[in-house]
Amino acid sequence: MPMSLKTYLASRQRLVDAELRRQLPSARTRPTTIHEAMRYSIFAGGKRLRPILGLAAAEACGAEEKSDAMASALRLGAAVEVLHTYTLIHDDLPCMDDDDFRRGMPTCHKKFGDGIAVLAGDALLTLSFEIVAGAKTPRRYPLADFVRELADTGGSRKLIGGQVMDLEGEGQGAKITAAQLRFIHESKTAALLTTAIRFGGMAANATPKQLEALTVFGHSLGLAFQVIDDILDVTQTSEKLGKSAGKDQAVGKATYPALFGLEKSRAEAARLTARAREALQVFGTRADHLREIADYLLNRDY
Amino acid sequence: MPMSLKTYLASRQRLVDAELRRQLPSARTRPTTIHEAMRYSIFAGGKRLRPILGLAAAEACGAEEKSDAMASALRLGAAVEVLHTYTLIHDDLPCMDDDDFRRGMPTCHKKFGDGIAVLAGDALLTLSFEIVAGAKTPRRYPLADFVRELADTGGSRKLIGGQVMDLEGEGQGAKITAAQLRFIHESKTAALLTTAIRFGGMAANATPKQLEALTVFGHSLGLAFQVIDDILDVTQTSEKLGKSAGKDQAVGKATYPALFGLEKSRAEAARLTARAREALQVFGTRADHLREIADYLLNRDY
Repeated sequence: MPMSLKTYLASRQRLVDAELRRQLPSARTRPTTIHEAMRYSIFAGGKRLRPILGLAAAEACGAEEKSDAMASALRLGAAVEVLHTYTLIHDDLPCMDDDDFRRGMPTCHKKFGDGIAVLAGDALLTLSFEIVAGAKTPRRYPLADFVRELADTGGSRKLIGGQVMDLEGEGQGAKITAAQLRFIHESKTAALLTTAIRFGGMAANATPKQLEALTVFGHSLGLAFQVIDDILDVTQTSEKLGKSAGKDQAVGKATYPALFGLEKSRAEAARLTARAREALQVFGTRADHLREIADYLLNRDY
Repeated sequence: MPMSLKTYLASRQRLVDAELRRQLPSARTRPTTIHEAMRYSIFAGGKRLRPILGLAAAEACGAEEKSDAMASALRLGAAVEVLHTYTLIHDDLPCMDDDDFRRGMPTCHKKFGDGIAVLAGDALLTLSFEIVAGAKTPRRYPLADFVRELADTGGSRKLIGGQVMDLEGEGQGAKITAAQLRFIHESKTAALLTTAIRFGGMAANATPKQLEALTVFGHSLGLAFQVIDDILDVTQTSEKLGKSAGKDQAVGKATYPALFGLEKSRAEAARLTARAREALQVFGTRADHLREIADYLLNRDY
């Protein structure tokens, strides 16, 4: 990773973490167990990719540092991160993917028990909408647009639907078609990544043309992200990933490498990343951070 | 129950059911499993108490039949019912209250498995905000007020917090203080009932004075409702309740009867209902349906 990008990501991550600290109830709020569990999972070392992409999208649309637009983008990014974290907690449950570790730490249910983990996920999902409700909305996009989009993306047809198909596809491995796999990736990963990016643009009062470009960028980047995730599950150690590697194969999950092999999967990730970059032309150099992040994600090794 | 109230409740229930049918994705929406599970729990014979109270509150504030205000109250009531249903699904899970039956039918996880039940609950919670986002909001109350209140009521300090305290209180029975028990009832039951009633009033553009009266009414009625629920768990059969009776005692849950005995509990329910009725004075006869529902809830035997 180029040094400048490393610095950029680190400073953005600090901003996002500070916003999350403001938005999460303190661990001393009663009943304390639930707030400790919520904070445990939120501050478990996430890279804050989604909110950072949102901030970079706001930047691409001309939002200045420390402007109201940037503050809104930050708040909306925090909402997306909070919703994303709830999906991780619930996906890790024994009755779902049954994972004991995430980012090298015990998962929420290993630490607090299954009941509290279900409730902590529920509470974060609920909180994500509360955070959105407090956003100062821009001229072009009323609050209803944000609430509706977050609910649609996080709902039964997309994010949750993708997890359902994922659960149902286990053990079927290579029997799932490429079209079905694409649908799972679109629902489970690309949808929320796209919403994170669109929210940043919308916070900066993006023109319809800018928002369309961000949507194409987000969709392609999201698909590339999931293909790369599947590749890393095959090629990397658990230690490096901070979660159980080789798990997809062990449970017979449908993945890109399982369907097409590693080489073709790598080519597909590169193709999708290139398509994502193309969509950014309308922004000129203002989208340089988005471009650098896309390249970094393609070449990451964990 | 007087015949006129019976007819009123039945016609309101039909309105609410029709609205829920409009708001829920069809069972054929992909992936079908999750939508079947969502509809299974939503259409499992609920009495629709919360949305009906919302409609009666709108009426008390002067909303006419078939007006825009009444349509908003109906939509917001459906959102509250959808959120309420998610809490039932998650509360019934083996890692929570572990209930196999509800309203005489197998609970969601008995029918669809634990993983799908977690996701169906998540999807309903998410959908409740999507439904709110589509509401036509009245002059006094912008959309942010509704989203914020639903998230606050459904969140970690209230509804979910109450469930946490309930889980943590199990086995402690009479060792919980009256103040703690009151706090659990306020969070777990009274908060959402109050929001259901307030939303109806807000949809009808309630004056601040009217909204305050509805808040006092909802709070007292919600507390009475939970005291009566606890009494029925002791005095009624499982068959009559459609769920496992005597369960509170079996798991050593803190309840009003456990703390104060049946006689004092009945007196408390009556006292709370009277306080609820008093709050309705400002509305005159327009609040007659709210009064009748409060009396019916006090005297119900299931």
